[in-house]
Amino acid sequence: MESLINCTEEQQPSSVLTNSWYNQEACRSQKAKCAGGFVLVHAGAGYHSESKAKEYKHVCKRACQRAVDQLRAGALAVEAATAALVELEDSPFTNAGMGSNLNLSGEIECDASIMDGKSLHFGAVGAISGIKNPVLVASCLLTEAQKGKLSAGRIPPCFLVGRGAHDWAVGHGIPPCPSEKMATKFSLSAYKRNKRKMELAEKMDTGQNQAKKRRQSSENENGSGCLDTVGAVVVDSEGNVAAAVSSGGLAMKHPGRVGQKKTSQKASHYGCGCWAENACNMNSYSTAVSTSGCGEHLIRTMLARECSAAMQSEDAHQALLEAMQNKFISSPFLASEDRVLGGVIVLRCCRCVEAQPSPNIQAAMVEFLWSHTTESMCVGYMSAQDSKAKTHISRLPPGTVPGQSLAIEGGVCRLMGMVD
Amino acid sequence: MESLINCTEEQQPSSVLTNSWYNQEACRSQKAKCAGGFVLVHAGAGYHSESKAKEYKHVCKRACQRAVDQLRAGALAVEAATAALVELEDSPFTNAGMGSNLNLSGEIECDASIMDGKSLHFGAVGAISGIKNPVLVASCLLTEAQKGKLSAGRIPPCFLVGRGAHDWAVGHGIPPCPSEKMATKFSLSAYKRNKRKMELAEKMDTGQNQAKKRRQSSENENGSGCLDTVGAVVVDSEGNVAAAVSSGGLAMKHPGRVGQKKTSQKASHYGCGCWAENACNMNSYSTAVSTSGCGEHLIRTMLARECSAAMQSEDAHQALLEAMQNKFISSPFLASEDRVLGGVIVLRCCRCVEAQPSPNIQAAMVEFLWSHTTESMCVGYMSAQDSKAKTHISRLPPGTVPGQSLAIEGGVCRLMGMVD
Repeated sequence: MESLINCTEEQQPSSVLTNSWYNQEACRSQKAKCAGGFVLVHAGAGYHSESKAKEYKHVCKRACQRAVDQLRAGALAVEAATAALVELEDSPFTNAGMGSNLNLSGEIECDASIMDGKSLHFGAVGAISGIKNPVLVASCLLTEAQKGKLSAGRIPPCFLVGRGAHDWAVGHGIPPCPSEKMATKFSLSAYKRNKRKMELAEKMDTGQNQAKKRRQSSENENGSGCLDTVGAVVVDSEGNVAAAVSSGGLAMKHPGRVGQKKTSQKASHYGCGCWAENACNMNSYSTAVSTSGCGEHLIRTMLARECSAAMQSEDAHQALLEAMQNKFISSPFLASEDRVLGGVIVLRCCRCVEAQPSPNIQAAMVEFLWSHTTESMCVGYMSAQDSKAKTHISRLPPGTVPGQSLAIEGGVCRLMGMVD
Repeated sequence: MESLINCTEEQQPSSVLTNSWYNQEACRSQKAKCAGGFVLVHAGAGYHSESKAKEYKHVCKRACQRAVDQLRAGALAVEAATAALVELEDSPFTNAGMGSNLNLSGEIECDASIMDGKSLHFGAVGAISGIKNPVLVASCLLTEAQKGKLSAGRIPPCFLVGRGAHDWAVGHGIPPCPSEKMATKFSLSAYKRNKRKMELAEKMDTGQNQAKKRRQSSENENGSGCLDTVGAVVVDSEGNVAAAVSSGGLAMKHPGRVGQKKTSQKASHYGCGCWAENACNMNSYSTAVSTSGCGEHLIRTMLARECSAAMQSEDAHQALLEAMQNKFISSPFLASEDRVLGGVIVLRCCRCVEAQPSPNIQAAMVEFLWSHTTESMCVGYMSAQDSKAKTHISRLPPGTVPGQSLAIEGGVCRLMGMVD
């Protein structure tokens, strides 16, 4: 694993990230064998307090380990991504699965989605309650869709919501989990605190100015608060990529709201929460992207798909920087927003001829990056050749304004393995 | 209104559609004043029997009239599109609102969405029950989102599903409607017929071959059946564009399934069911697109957004033909599908200097097109300067295979009006 590069918006991309790629035209559009594979996860773009930094890093580490265990056992990228997400959802510290934000009615409704870069299939659930691991439902939808048509030629669904999603999951062997078991002490006390704040804000908005004031309130829970959608991007040893995302949604969201997290808070929206495409005739690189942050911002900019498309440029770092700047912060689709909040993790890979010591050994290069406009983002990454995961909490440079500036960081991982 | 051009896949685009545009570089990226405005609607891409042709055409005519009434009263494009959709939803012959397909549980769950090309805001509902006009909920979500943040700085939702969507609608003054009132004699008898077919198909799939056979069944209800998502694209007299879509979803779909219709059957998925963008620095033309057909196919190809992007090319007809061919029928995202079913209506407009008789009179040109891979598609169109709407049922050329070939047709409308 090469060293992590770290640069803010003002800095030029590090040469570590880019030089290795310039003379590889010939082998680009071939899917690279990625000996063992690689995973990059995140525990959300939002605000991560120093006091809980250890927990955030720990869950990222465990998620990477789970994915790598799968990869070493020969699993495909989608399976490894699912395994990482289950670990992230099970943590009470993330806003996904266990410990998710409560909605306006005090219920937990989750969203999750997953995309397979090999088949280009997608599975997603939105506003689902009573399922501990929403990503398992998304993953199951994807698997079922790949099998082809249902009886009487019906087309299998790729996106289910609400009660229908819950019932489908249970019918496909995913055990239900009482909602009250999914709330934690922390999520319940955050709900009560938010509820009080909301009531207070609405009490202050009285008389004629109510509608006006209601719209002016800019100090918001979501602006700098916890928007801890979780996600993972994976490349397996065959070079297939996958991306997944899972979310508990915005705190105090309206019931039934489907946002950004893979299908719902973004999770349910195709192209917004995650994206994965293997290299093909049209695409030089295999790319995988997972996003996090304010659902509506991620949906309306189709951030995952935009970043994936940008990753076909020569310079990955520069392309991501420009995508985050032009297609997100300054997007015409968010012209009325003063603060655009979100984050992404991306990876791309291709064969690497220069680094091959012999014809029997094939080298692949995995470039991985994260970028966010929120105060912080917690990430972890690991290759199947590493003994343990690296974790990091990325923060905006001091003095910059969340939602108006960004941080971007990343690294490169070279994977070598025997050709069959 | 100029004459309708009609050409199938093999034919070159008619000169009527394209010649007028070649020398207008200078005025392209300005929003055109479109004296009175224009509307194009469709009653679904699917199969329209000759016996019901009159009814399909009649509802398209009424929908156009409703939109034009609004436009003449000075309404914005989004309002006119909503009015057209309400009329289409209220028809028992379309698969939207009243008379929608019943799902696997015998319930009606609808999807609808709307996009405003001026603000680029989007509103959508998925798997909503007990609301007569789902498009009104989508439209209300869009309007509310345009007002800005909620109390305590909460971000307003753009996409709601299921029970949450229903409750939000009722809370915003949209009256509930008992589901049984939304079923028609036709939709109930279709449900019973489909249910019998399904049971028969599943009875035949016994023993070891069950899973295999279940996937092989290719003669399907949806292949050539009624997929009558409805939609509208509108430009108002100020030159703003809007697009809307509404759907009852696939017959016998799983409850909670969110498909293509604007948010749900496609309706809920951003970029899949409808798209609208006013001209701006980046886009020469104002464009609006509404799609119809098999939800999963429309979602995975993001057909509405792809067609909108294609409409920025010089030759609208050729661009739509190529988009339908390369981004839909031959899309790598649908590589495993033998038949790709869907249809689109599109419009684009810009100022037309050549046709201006005096400096006080401004002319705008609206190009409108429809294309489908389904057996047929019923459309209607009308400008605010017309006394009545024109309607047409477009059919695939004889001998061609639905899902593998396409029909494409369209026309041009020149609108002239006084400059303020």
